[in-house]
Amino acid sequence: MKNKRPYNFNPGPAILPLEVMQKAQEEFLNFNNTGLSIAESSHRGKDFEGVVQQAQEKIKKILNISDEYNILFLQGGASLQFGMIPMNFLNGKNADYVLTGYWAKQAVKEAKLFGQVNIAASSEDKNFSVIPEKFNFSSDAQYVHLTSNETIHGIQWRKFPDTGNVPLIADMSSDIISRRFDMNKFSMIYAGTQKNMGTSGVTLVILRKDLAGKANPNLTTMLKYQTHIEKNSLYNTPCVIGIYLTNLVLDWVLKQGGLDAVEKMNNEKAAILYDYIDSSNFYYGLTEKTDRSKMNVVYQIKDAAAEEKFISEAKASGFIGLKGHRNLGHIRASIYNAMPLQGVKDLVSFMKDFAKKNG
Amino acid sequence: MKNKRPYNFNPGPAILPLEVMQKAQEEFLNFNNTGLSIAESSHRGKDFEGVVQQAQEKIKKILNISDEYNILFLQGGASLQFGMIPMNFLNGKNADYVLTGYWAKQAVKEAKLFGQVNIAASSEDKNFSVIPEKFNFSSDAQYVHLTSNETIHGIQWRKFPDTGNVPLIADMSSDIISRRFDMNKFSMIYAGTQKNMGTSGVTLVILRKDLAGKANPNLTTMLKYQTHIEKNSLYNTPCVIGIYLTNLVLDWVLKQGGLDAVEKMNNEKAAILYDYIDSSNFYYGLTEKTDRSKMNVVYQIKDAAAEEKFISEAKASGFIGLKGHRNLGHIRASIYNAMPLQGVKDLVSFMKDFAKKNG
Repeated sequence: MKNKRPYNFNPGPAILPLEVMQKAQEEFLNFNNTGLSIAESSHRGKDFEGVVQQAQEKIKKILNISDEYNILFLQGGASLQFGMIPMNFLNGKNADYVLTGYWAKQAVKEAKLFGQVNIAASSEDKNFSVIPEKFNFSSDAQYVHLTSNETIHGIQWRKFPDTGNVPLIADMSSDIISRRFDMNKFSMIYAGTQKNMGTSGVTLVILRKDLAGKANPNLTTMLKYQTHIEKNSLYNTPCVIGIYLTNLVLDWVLKQGGLDAVEKMNNEKAAILYDYIDSSNFYYGLTEKTDRSKMNVVYQIKDAAAEEKFISEAKASGFIGLKGHRNLGHIRASIYNAMPLQGVKDLVSFMKDFAKKNG
Repeated sequence: MKNKRPYNFNPGPAILPLEVMQKAQEEFLNFNNTGLSIAESSHRGKDFEGVVQQAQEKIKKILNISDEYNILFLQGGASLQFGMIPMNFLNGKNADYVLTGYWAKQAVKEAKLFGQVNIAASSEDKNFSVIPEKFNFSSDAQYVHLTSNETIHGIQWRKFPDTGNVPLIADMSSDIISRRFDMNKFSMIYAGTQKNMGTSGVTLVILRKDLAGKANPNLTTMLKYQTHIEKNSLYNTPCVIGIYLTNLVLDWVLKQGGLDAVEKMNNEKAAILYDYIDSSNFYYGLTEKTDRSKMNVVYQIKDAAAEEKFISEAKASGFIGLKGHRNLGHIRASIYNAMPLQGVKDLVSFMKDFAKKNG
């Protein structure tokens, strides 16, 4: 595999569009005709401030976000947000969390340190193979938290619940910018950029101004959303190269035709892979058809002993990153925006061939 | 300046060695013969885990650090450390801080949220032009905190104080890996990597195991040093491209001959610039000779009105980033490890020429 570019099915950091990587390589020593690398560029310079502004505007355009929201580029990933959200908005009171898998559970664990957590719904009794349908929301909750796509368990919300006057907050790390959704339902969404939006090192936070205004003011400066709102994400030195790459990925999304075109392609890719799994006697899916993820396709071989062989032969054939999460096992194909249709078609061909030889 | 590489005197993100940038560019689409970019590489893959381990070993070698310490790569910069340190180690008790400039002040501000801060010494009455000589340390302090180099005020500790049994913690963001020091005096040092060690997005923390063991256990997972120690900096997705670049910069340091060779070169560069300023009737330094920084040379033109012209003509001549911090003004030349000797010599030539024309 030393000379061919493999298909990268890693869950994140994940595949990026080849033309984005080529552009970044081409201008790696000369960003914006400054004669410097982006990696050496001051975050206080107008060239980089332009990148931040452009990226913010493109996100607003792609996701159709109104001026009621601030677009922030932070650090620490969703894992730091799991703590920052209750530190800012829970503060000894109560909040509702929907338990849909590994990542929702991580969010719950951190929230419990800062207040009372009500599990408004859970699919743990179904091994997180489905999104719950009924919710026990509290009218006095500070917010409702959900995880739009569970990267490890491979399930994804199709329709988001109506939480009335209670602010809805979502971890969208693994399906941001993969499909259309109504931002007006949410007071805050957040996402590490290392799946659909760039490389790791940047956390996108989109926060409605009225929720931001209610935050706990007694926190260390870096953990207050208000700090980053006031300084437009430049309170301290952000991950400059990460924001730059995100900006290039957003250009690529627009060039594809924006969110609707990207969603159409994602639907097509997921259908090809799931249709084959559904029709196969060799592989089977681990999630309910109604809620299975279009980003992370989790499946198994009926003969579990063949899985290791599958992963290793797939790798040798140029399909990498198919091993499921270390905590769950199985096979997982992460097919984010940048995975080309051909990559999914070729994977299905490989799977058919493997099934024939090992079935 | 579109065709020539300018000399980059920015305070951070700052100049990086050209050969590091060239290597990163060359392998940008094919990291470690994986056929993928480092930006697309899983942080759980053995290739990237190898990068983390190599970088840790090189840091231990270059700085001569014993196995009593853990080497961590975190996110959020020194600014997040200003809060994390008191959250982990102060916890309602008292600590000593030495006030030497803008950055020490930021650290004090955050510590006050979590306990009692004793200013053990301050040079604020001298406009932070000097490092204090006498310290009023408390025997019951949880730790002593100092800032080894003040990036904005341009002063630098020459000799670190003996704090006995009280742990000494230092923010070394702007002079890490620029000179020899005895790590055994310190229980913890930390540094954003965007000055001498790479680009932004990574925070190096070197922490002695006995101090780590004393940390407050009731914090959100991401803010506990213990989390990152146990998971060897891979608890969540770190800034992969940033750690990769740091690893390349460390190779470059070793290739220069290690820390002693780098320090010798830094001494030479600083001497050339300060000697000229001292001998000039046109420019003058703002810091005491005994404590002036070898990383950030802060100076002024006697006719203050000429400063803007100086910055703008310097830029047109290929010397960028010379404008002082927005809070202090004046001229600042940041001459980190990667600034070549010729860059400083050429800057002095430009300064002489400017003085002749405007003196």
